[in-house]
Formats: sequence, C-alpha cells, structure tokens
Amino acid sequence: MAQLRDLKDELDIVIPTIRNLDFLEMWRPFFQPYHLIIVQDGDPSNTIGVPEGFDYELYNRNDVNRILGPKASCIPFKDSACRCFGFLVSKKKYIFTIDDDCFVAKEPNGKEINALEQHIRNLLTPSTPLFFNTLYDPFANGSDFVRGYPFSLREGLPTAISHGLWLNIPDYDAPTQLVKPRERNTRYVDAVMTIPKGTLFPMCGMNLAFDRELIGPAMYFGLMGDGQPIGRYDDMWAGWCAKVICDHLLLGVKTGLPYIWHSKASNPFVNLKKEYKGIYWQEDIIPFFQSIALREECTSVQDCYIELANKVKERLGPIDPYFEKLGDAMVTWIEAWNELNPPPPPAQTATVAHPNVAMKN
Amino acid sequence: MAQLRDLKDELDIVIPTIRNLDFLEMWRPFFQPYHLIIVQDGDPSNTIGVPEGFDYELYNRNDVNRILGPKASCIPFKDSACRCFGFLVSKKKYIFTIDDDCFVAKEPNGKEINALEQHIRNLLTPSTPLFFNTLYDPFANGSDFVRGYPFSLREGLPTAISHGLWLNIPDYDAPTQLVKPRERNTRYVDAVMTIPKGTLFPMCGMNLAFDRELIGPAMYFGLMGDGQPIGRYDDMWAGWCAKVICDHLLLGVKTGLPYIWHSKASNPFVNLKKEYKGIYWQEDIIPFFQSIALREECTSVQDCYIELANKVKERLGPIDPYFEKLGDAMVTWIEAWNELNPPPPPAQTATVAHPNVAMKN
Repeated sequence: MAQLRDLKDELDIVIPTIRNLDFLEMWRPFFQPYHLIIVQDGDPSNTIGVPEGFDYELYNRNDVNRILGPKASCIPFKDSACRCFGFLVSKKKYIFTIDDDCFVAKEPNGKEINALEQHIRNLLTPSTPLFFNTLYDPFANGSDFVRGYPFSLREGLPTAISHGLWLNIPDYDAPTQLVKPRERNTRYVDAVMTIPKGTLFPMCGMNLAFDRELIGPAMYFGLMGDGQPIGRYDDMWAGWCAKVICDHLLLGVKTGLPYIWHSKASNPFVNLKKEYKGIYWQEDIIPFFQSIALREECTSVQDCYIELANKVKERLGPIDPYFEKLGDAMVTWIEAWNELNPPPPPAQTATVAHPNVAMKN
Repeated sequence: MAQLRDLKDELDIVIPTIRNLDFLEMWRPFFQPYHLIIVQDGDPSNTIGVPEGFDYELYNRNDVNRILGPKASCIPFKDSACRCFGFLVSKKKYIFTIDDDCFVAKEPNGKEINALEQHIRNLLTPSTPLFFNTLYDPFANGSDFVRGYPFSLREGLPTAISHGLWLNIPDYDAPTQLVKPRERNTRYVDAVMTIPKGTLFPMCGMNLAFDRELIGPAMYFGLMGDGQPIGRYDDMWAGWCAKVICDHLLLGVKTGLPYIWHSKASNPFVNLKKEYKGIYWQEDIIPFFQSIALREECTSVQDCYIELANKVKERLGPIDPYFEKLGDAMVTWIEAWNELNPPPPPAQTATVAHPNVAMKN
C-alpha cells in the first residue's frame, strides 16, 4: 500500500458559499493545515465570515469578472457551480471541494471521519477500472486482488477523481425528495471502489477530490444558475465529461469512502424547477456520453474537452439552443484554463516526466 | 421494494463434496426447508453422511455416467467444478451453491447472516448494469437512485446472478496466498451492487446463486480437475462466459452481500500447481472475453453459449489444445442441458409468459 504523503502544500480546499463559514469550526482539526479557496456566490457586497486561523483566499463575482474579463461568462453565478472558478485559480496539484452544509460524519464505532485524509488515500493509490475486484479496493489495508484477477492489471491506473458519499441527507433529485421526504442515509458502506471503464456515474460535487494535473480542465461545472434554463446538473455534467475523458486517457475514478454528514435537504420544489429540463434532457445526454468515442489524437485533457465541446454542440445542440451556448462556454473555459495555467516550458516538463528522453533531446 | 417470495419450492441448494456434510448443522435453520442436490466428487464407493432431517438427492460419479452416458465427459471429476452437474439435473428456477467449508457469518452487530435469504432478495430485485448508482443497490431498504440517475433506467433489468462474498479466508490465488498467508478478510461491506455492463469480474463459486431459467446453460464450470491441465478456474470460466452473455441479453449480475464465513484456506502449493497455467493463459483469455461481440441473432442463452464455444476454439485454440477440448465440452454441456431440460411445449410457454399474446395466437 502506498504511503500517505502530506499534501499540505499540494492541495487546495475549494468552498462555494453565500454565507458565513461557521461550518469550518467542525472541520478545523482536519482542514486548518490546508489552504482554502472560497468562491463567494451571489451579491459581492456581502461579507463572508471565515473563522479565525484558516489560511484562505476569497473571490467574489467582481474578482471573477476582473480576473477573467469577457471569459468570466463561462463561470456560473447564483449556483454552487461557481466553485469551478476555484479549480481554475488554484495552483496546486490536488483539489478537495466541499459544500458548506456538510459536517464531519462518524464511523459506526463513533470515530470522526477525516474525509480529506481518505480522499488523499484514494487519490494517491491506483484505480482498477479495467477489471472488477469483488473485495473492493485492493489497495486498502487488509485487502488485495482476488483469485482470477489478471496479474497484468494489478498495477492499476493513476487515480484522477475521488468521489465521496453522504450520510444523513442523501443526494436525491427533486422527484425522489418529494416522494421520500423522510428518507435518510444511515448505511455506512466501508468500501472504496473504482468505477469501471465505460460506465458513467452521477458525480456529486458535495464531497469531491481530484488531481488537477490529471483531470482539472475537465472539471468545468457548466452553465447553471442565473440566466440559465437548468440547475443542479453542474456536477453531473462535470462528472459525465470527466468520466468519458478518464476512460479515454486511462485514468481512474473512485467512489465510496469518505462519508461526510450532509445536514440539510434543499427545497424540493425549488429543486424541481431547476431540474425539470435536466431530467428531460438527460435521457438524450446519457446515450450521447455513452456513445462517445474520442479521437486517438486527443492526448491531453484539453484536447479531449474541446473535442467534447464540439460534439456537444453538434449532437445536443438540436435538442435545445442551450447546448450551443454550453459548448461555447466549454471552449471559453479551456481558454481561461490555459491562460491561468500555462504549461511549463517544454524542457522542464520533459525533465520532470522523462529525464532520459530530455537528455536525448 | 419487491416483497420477498418464499422460494422453498423454486430453489435447489447444490453442494459439491467429498466428505460428510456436518457443516449443514450450522445452516439447518436456513437450509432445512430447501431441497439439496449433493454432488459427490471422487471415489463413488465412499459414503457421504448427511445430517438427519434434510431433504436431498445425491449423485456420485456412477450416477453422472449413468445419466449422461458419453456426454458425462463434460462433467469435471476430482474438482469442485463437478457442482455444475447439480445445475443440470435441477428442475427448479433458482440455484444456490455453497462449499462445504463455508459457515454462517455474522454481521458486525453479531447477528447471524441468512445468506440464502439475501441471495433471494438479490435475485428477486432488479439489477442496474446500464448506469452506476453511487449509493449502491437502489432496491435495498432505505436506499434509492441518486440525483442524476436517468429515470428511464430506473426499472432496472432482471437479475440473473447473485455473487456473495466471504469473511475470514479471502478467495486469493496461490501467489497471493503464498505472499500473505495470514491475511484475513474482516471488512464487512454492507452493500450489494450491480456489476456494470461491459465489465468482467472474477466469479467465485463458493457462495453463489443464480436464476437457472435466465442463465443456467451458461453456468458450466468447464473442464477442470482429473486429467485436465488446470484447476481453480472453473468458477472464473463460468463467470466470464455468463457475464458476457448477461451483457448481451441485458441481464444483471450482482455482487456483495451476503457474506459466508470461509473457514479454511486451501493449500497454496497445491493451488499453485493447479493454477499456474491459468494464471498465464488468463492474460489472453481476458482480452478475448473483453472483445467478444455476440451476434444479434443469439437470443437464447444456449445460442450465445454455442457461439462462445466456437469462438473459444477459434481464438483460444491456438494458445493450447486444451481450449479445443474445452470448446467441444461446452457444446456437449449444452446438448446435455437441452436433453435434461427440454423446453416446455410452445403454447404452454406463451400462456405462462404472455397470456394475451397466447390468446391472439
């Protein structure tokens, strides 16, 4: 099993919010060593209180507009999807993002769960998307690959995304919320698993970590919120795009541990209004993503994402003009990403990645 | 959630063995209402003791030879793979098969696990192989589909296979047994999940249930044991074949709960001798199964299996003559299956399955 590195200097915690961040008090023992990127949504003249002792930078809409200029149009407003701005401005290798209504959950034995530590463990150990391991994460303590698992696949693939879960309020859509208003998730499933290659999943942004270098440019949360016809599909959109790209680039996506405690159900009536077009469109979007084959020439996340943006316009555009706009915004996002995250000079990259090759060149 | 039916008259428990079945004492509260099919392996002159009060039929090698005649050549001898003979002679819709070194496991709270009841629950509720649900089985109590799960896929697909797990001795291959002789599985993962379409998994025959009508003819455990160059790949072989066919016919495969307590590790040195060719061949077998596309015309399990047998001979035959023999045995197995399980007269089938259609015809 891989030794856990200390990621204090390699990971940013991104929090979208419209209110004082009192929830951080509960996370203090776990988050305080890390740098926070707070993305303030809504009225920029409001003041967001951050508990003492946290190291943070805070961006409101004015900052977004100032930093991105006309490209700011791709960053959602009045929607937690604005969090992706934090992914853009981070300079770190890893991101953990969490909602401000999420608290520290407990294991069945009562022990508080250090969600961030588990995400780091997930990201620093390989994924196994090419074959299913019935005893779940073979890189967990006390576990391994079972009989019949091909030996050539046991090194696994690099992990790009770690998707954590939620106790208490489950992440249900509005119709399910309406039908089951009292359902709570009390089932603690002690497992981390890789989502197999070729399989899509509903990625929730509430408790999510990823390797920015491996998949960052695909973590765009789309056009949601103010002025847009849908909401609550931001993380889903990012998840579908990112999964298709991870599959193409042979990167892994894990789900399962860690749990956070999700404290508050959002209003199902408001949610229904945000979701209803998504619920409808999704029936075309899913087959679209399931059938996508990216060209072999797409070898970077940016390449893949631009190709995806073109396909979105071409194949989803006919459903609604929204997808034309979304495809354009996806391109703008990549432009913004490349502007704020210029690639290191080629020689340097080569030195880091392939010292021998660099010498030969 | 689907109501649990009583399957007393619809399920057989198949047990391959070479010894007295004292292990049944521990299972008595759970198994006694069911009919057992005991497949006695090894010397037919040995007497297998079965605890009082169980309803069973027992077949030894002489019975296998008598019932199948020349087709008996497809049934393995001196290997627990002989269990598939029990699948063949059963007249029930469901099968549960378990090894005689498996005992009743306990939940973390100390409650004894009724493995059979959980398997029945797994088989009687739908599977969801077309999209991943992050809160695991949406048909479990207190669970559902999460936000972003397409509504058109929420009916799920019929479940063909329920693959249960093992506490204590994990199902490791010989190399892993040798490297980690003391590793025990103590992790109770409280989840059932569908293995996504297009993903292969290592199916273990130790604690396994299936719907014989949906997938029975694919549950052939191959040529193993006496006179064969490999062992311990019987259940793996069945799993790969069955999964490819389930994917083609849009049937579901679940894994996870229930756990049994696996009491005894087999000898890793003996296992290595049985496995080593399989470990080597598997590196070609897996890509073979991953790349298989069955013809659309294959609409029954038998059709699919014969097609698979032909492909095995054609594409794996060049690796070793064993695969020629195996392909032939697969065909023989289907012939034996059809002989012992003749399809009901067409009119009757239609009456049961589609009463209205039958009336129109």
